[in-house]
Amino acid sequence: MYREEFFVETNSHEEAINITNKIQEIVSRSGVKNGLCNIYVPHATAGLIINEDADPNVMIDLFNALRKSIPNHAGWLHDRIDNNAAAHIKSSITSCSVNIPIIDGKPGLGTWQGVMLLEFDGPRRRRVIVTIIS
Amino acid sequence: MYREEFFVETNSHEEAINITNKIQEIVSRSGVKNGLCNIYVPHATAGLIINEDADPNVMIDLFNALRKSIPNHAGWLHDRIDNNAAAHIKSSITSCSVNIPIIDGKPGLGTWQGVMLLEFDGPRRRRVIVTIIS
Amino acid sequence: MYREEFFVETNSHEEAINITNKIQEIVSRSGVKNGLCNIYVPHATAGLIINEDADPNVMIDLFNALRKSIPNHAGWLHDRIDNNAAAHIKSSITSCSVNIPIIDGKPGLGTWQGVMLLEFDGPRRRRVIVTIIS
Repeated sequence: MYREEFFVETNSHEEAINITNKIQEIVSRSGVKNGLCNIYVPHATAGLIINEDADPNVMIDLFNALRKSIPNHAGWLHDRIDNNAAAHIKSSITSCSVNIPIIDGKPGLGTWQGVMLLEFDGPRRRRVIVTIIS
Repeated sequence: MYREEFFVETNSHEEAINITNKIQEIVSRSGVKNGLCNIYVPHATAGLIINEDADPNVMIDLFNALRKSIPNHAGWLHDRIDNNAAAHIKSSITSCSVNIPIIDGKPGLGTWQGVMLLEFDGPRRRRVIVTIIS
Repeated sequence: MYREEFFVETNSHEEAINITNKIQEIVSRSGVKNGLCNIYVPHATAGLIINEDADPNVMIDLFNALRKSIPNHAGWLHDRIDNNAAAHIKSSITSCSVNIPIIDGKPGLGTWQGVMLLEFDGPRRRRVIVTIIS
């Protein structure tokens, strides 16, 4: 088992941060040739997804779609406490944990796949935990 | 590898059950200091998510958001058989399997994160399978 | 660690392909009695979910619900490049990676659970990577 952590500083209220290179570096440093890589964000208003990283508009479209389905301040009860209920709902739906196979020493991402940290309530400092099982 | 199972009795048609303490106890009993914990519900009308457990209204907001996007009995074809199509759709979207890193003998949950079993078609008896890889 | 891959040819633009039997065969060939099985599709316009496979209408309802929340060509920016933005959004939400415990040499699926590859931009040839940790 190998573990590394790193931090991401987000700059906007909503933003997708491409962390693919960081994951590739960690998998490389682990020396693991075949196994499984878990990426985890210990946050309730951020998310992790794997999708296209070539055209940044894919993530803008995703944020727009989520905002349309889960509008900000649409009478959510948690807004009375923290005013960020929509961020919690989006985080619940997009998940805080993803798994990627490690194949021949690299994350088995497809040609069009990157790993994205989704900020739903920024700007904030976010922690990313990478666990590798060989 | 270490495995434990437990059952949860839900009391309502829709309900979030906080199973964080159960998961922490199982991780502790496993004796695993660093690894990965998979939580799995073998059900097609329940879900598992990780999100805020301090304010119960976060889960009420999540249920309300899902009900708005996926209304009950909105002409779903599966309703003709079981009358619970919306529960299947919500279960598909929220997932039945989550992974948490184990760090220093504890689930690596963030300050505001808890593990929630989501009941979409209760009340029912639900099985939770916890698998720990060291 | 044991790994196998296979390909699925989808036939429609949107389609759910039941890959449960393939997963069961691979778990059986692995010889692993207790562990964890990760299923991964290295694609940004397909998804993987676990839900009911007995009534095919469950998946038709899921596709209809996703299409209602995320309509095709609703002004998405990525449509200007590839015309398949909705497929990327649906793939992001349904995930490309699922984990199932292996119990007594079999995937620990519930009675009503099957593993579904979701095609959102077919017909295409899709790759499925199965990684088994014992």
